[in-house]
Amino acid sequence: MELTPWDGSRIGLDQEEMRRHNRGTFLRLVHLNGGISRAELARRMNLNRSTIKTLTAELSAAGLVREVAQTDNRHQGRPSPIVRPETQRFHVLAFDVAVDRVVAARIGLGGVILDRKVAARRRSGVDLDYVVTTLAELGRELIDAAPSTSTCVGLGASYCGMIRPGDGTVRFGPDLGWVDQAFGAELARRLGLGLRVPVGNEAHLGALAEHLRGAGMGVQNLVYLHGDVGVGGGIIVGGTVLDGDAGYGCELGHMVVNPHDGRPCGCGSSGCLEAEAGERALLDAARRPPEVFGRDAVRAVAADAAAGDANARDALDYVGDWLGIGVANLINLFNPAVVVFGGMLRDVYAGVLPRVRGRVARNVLPVAKEKVRLSVSALGDDATLIGAGELGFERLLHDPLSEMPRVSPTAW
Amino acid sequence: MELTPWDGSRIGLDQEEMRRHNRGTFLRLVHLNGGISRAELARRMNLNRSTIKTLTAELSAAGLVREVAQTDNRHQGRPSPIVRPETQRFHVLAFDVAVDRVVAARIGLGGVILDRKVAARRRSGVDLDYVVTTLAELGRELIDAAPSTSTCVGLGASYCGMIRPGDGTVRFGPDLGWVDQAFGAELARRLGLGLRVPVGNEAHLGALAEHLRGAGMGVQNLVYLHGDVGVGGGIIVGGTVLDGDAGYGCELGHMVVNPHDGRPCGCGSSGCLEAEAGERALLDAARRPPEVFGRDAVRAVAADAAAGDANARDALDYVGDWLGIGVANLINLFNPAVVVFGGMLRDVYAGVLPRVRGRVARNVLPVAKEKVRLSVSALGDDATLIGAGELGFERLLHDPLSEMPRVSPTAW
Repeated sequence: MELTPWDGSRIGLDQEEMRRHNRGTFLRLVHLNGGISRAELARRMNLNRSTIKTLTAELSAAGLVREVAQTDNRHQGRPSPIVRPETQRFHVLAFDVAVDRVVAARIGLGGVILDRKVAARRRSGVDLDYVVTTLAELGRELIDAAPSTSTCVGLGASYCGMIRPGDGTVRFGPDLGWVDQAFGAELARRLGLGLRVPVGNEAHLGALAEHLRGAGMGVQNLVYLHGDVGVGGGIIVGGTVLDGDAGYGCELGHMVVNPHDGRPCGCGSSGCLEAEAGERALLDAARRPPEVFGRDAVRAVAADAAAGDANARDALDYVGDWLGIGVANLINLFNPAVVVFGGMLRDVYAGVLPRVRGRVARNVLPVAKEKVRLSVSALGDDATLIGAGELGFERLLHDPLSEMPRVSPTAW
Repeated sequence: MELTPWDGSRIGLDQEEMRRHNRGTFLRLVHLNGGISRAELARRMNLNRSTIKTLTAELSAAGLVREVAQTDNRHQGRPSPIVRPETQRFHVLAFDVAVDRVVAARIGLGGVILDRKVAARRRSGVDLDYVVTTLAELGRELIDAAPSTSTCVGLGASYCGMIRPGDGTVRFGPDLGWVDQAFGAELARRLGLGLRVPVGNEAHLGALAEHLRGAGMGVQNLVYLHGDVGVGGGIIVGGTVLDGDAGYGCELGHMVVNPHDGRPCGCGSSGCLEAEAGERALLDAARRPPEVFGRDAVRAVAADAAAGDANARDALDYVGDWLGIGVANLINLFNPAVVVFGGMLRDVYAGVLPRVRGRVARNVLPVAKEKVRLSVSALGDDATLIGAGELGFERLLHDPLSEMPRVSPTAW
């Protein structure tokens, strides 16, 4: 069914818009592939070789890409030159506020993490001022350490909460107890680079990263479950992150799976997927005391179960069954090519898999389960950070030759 | 968050592709608006007036649109001419296989139903041959009755099952017990018009129609629940129907909402939304005997409840509560602007609304419920038929001046 209904944002094209589109698509392909031949660019973009040659020249002149000779001689005839991103010359700063640490990284064009700084953080009582101060310090350290020839073209941040897309305000962040905190604006102000900070929900960004560079490469429909204290979600529909009407979609952790006698959830409701399959549910089911929590505690349950401990085994079965109901519901709704388990769900993946598979077999409609694949995150704990980096590159990739504010280290 | 990640289908643009895109966008705007001024087209497409004038001339020359003088003199200055679709000159045939009837309609460019034919159908034991024979007869009657100046530019069909997009095969249609039936190909063969028949899931098409012409006009994110014997779903994400990886997405009726002691579902599982909130659940809860079923029986329960009957009232509360859990889950996942209740859910809408609203208030995360609207279908029983019509127009709207097979009645 070829349904391409009109959406309100679709506009007409003129010469300038066409050229911008082609430059953006070209640079995006180079950025995502790391290196790609001119012949392959022509094939993927469905453009003739002379147009590709012109685009290569334009973006080379801007210093964004460079051509190198093809060393692979398997192909007959004159080898097509390879176009590579100028990873050392252009970078973004990416920030990630995770449950137990804050991270900043300098990521080069092409998606290469060039440098990173990490600071531990308290698990609660962490306010806006503390977080942006810490992140801005890490960011400054990265810029100070960067070579003078590298230019910052964007910023991006990941946060575990519901984010207003326009200005990066955290509308609702139950983990830190944040409500309506101007995170993006305040971080931009503290960094003082003259660049705004787009902010994304951590699971949305994890999904984006797995889609572009991880377990979902080449796949246009993907569900990503991000286990942390709660269970977040990022869903790729037709190659795009499902944002919904206001940016608050993908909250799969608050899907009610147990309406009868569900455990209370941090959101105020009960029986939500994250209440039944999150960290606390697992640790309670494994009879761990309340003061035991965190990633190491989760890993200990998985290890105990693998070693034959019955409590730990039961706990993984309990969590696996609820997770399985959630995953089956998501497959029926999204018909994804792959379901990716990230964050702490990587640590319990092997242990919960039999129950999850059982629920998928029982609850997913026949044709929707024909091809679906289950997988752990390929990018691991870097998924959200890499996703934040992609946010930072978005403006450059949208319009590579536009006059945008860029910060070169000499300005410091 | 401006996330526009690269999707594999994005290609470069050349002059010809740019012109095709502009013609398609122009004709789509005229088709969806019925009539729209040249000034408004220029504004919406972000193109200058001379380009719009050229596009108008091209599509007028092809007979697809015509210009009429603006009669509204409220605006100062020379009024911009109105571009209208040539509704009488170009049409599609749309087919709908509903639970109790089959329908065919001739729909003119601009989305106007020009003529329709309806046949009753048995509720079970209906095989492929019976359905395509009936539909082909209705289609032929429509063509015979059409004026000789009207040309058929496409076909489209709606079916209540999981459809393979490429060839319109019904992979799984539990209502009629169909598995892997070549519905689209066989209907095309019987019609013998030299046009293929794209087929869509009825709820996907209902969602599309409500998005383009109904309760979700102007909205880019919409969830449509279609009550029939089961509960189907169509979900618009960012202006596009959620198809998923193979066309089988949106199966919200098989979201498990009651994992403990759920009613058995036609899919072989139990506790699915449609098992708890579908027609049979409602009638059982209202203590109707098994031989009572169908739309009139559902309406009778709604009427009895409104008249104070306690059984009927309890039945609506029962269904409303499960429906509410499902709707709350969908709002958390999709952050839609509107949730539309279609098919038989229109008949119970007023009766279930309090319980649905209660669940939304309790289970949806704070910011996601700020703006969401609940609504009945605006197109009623025509939603799926109108959606099938849009499927039929898709090829013309994609490339208005392409050389495509068209059927004018003189060929008969």
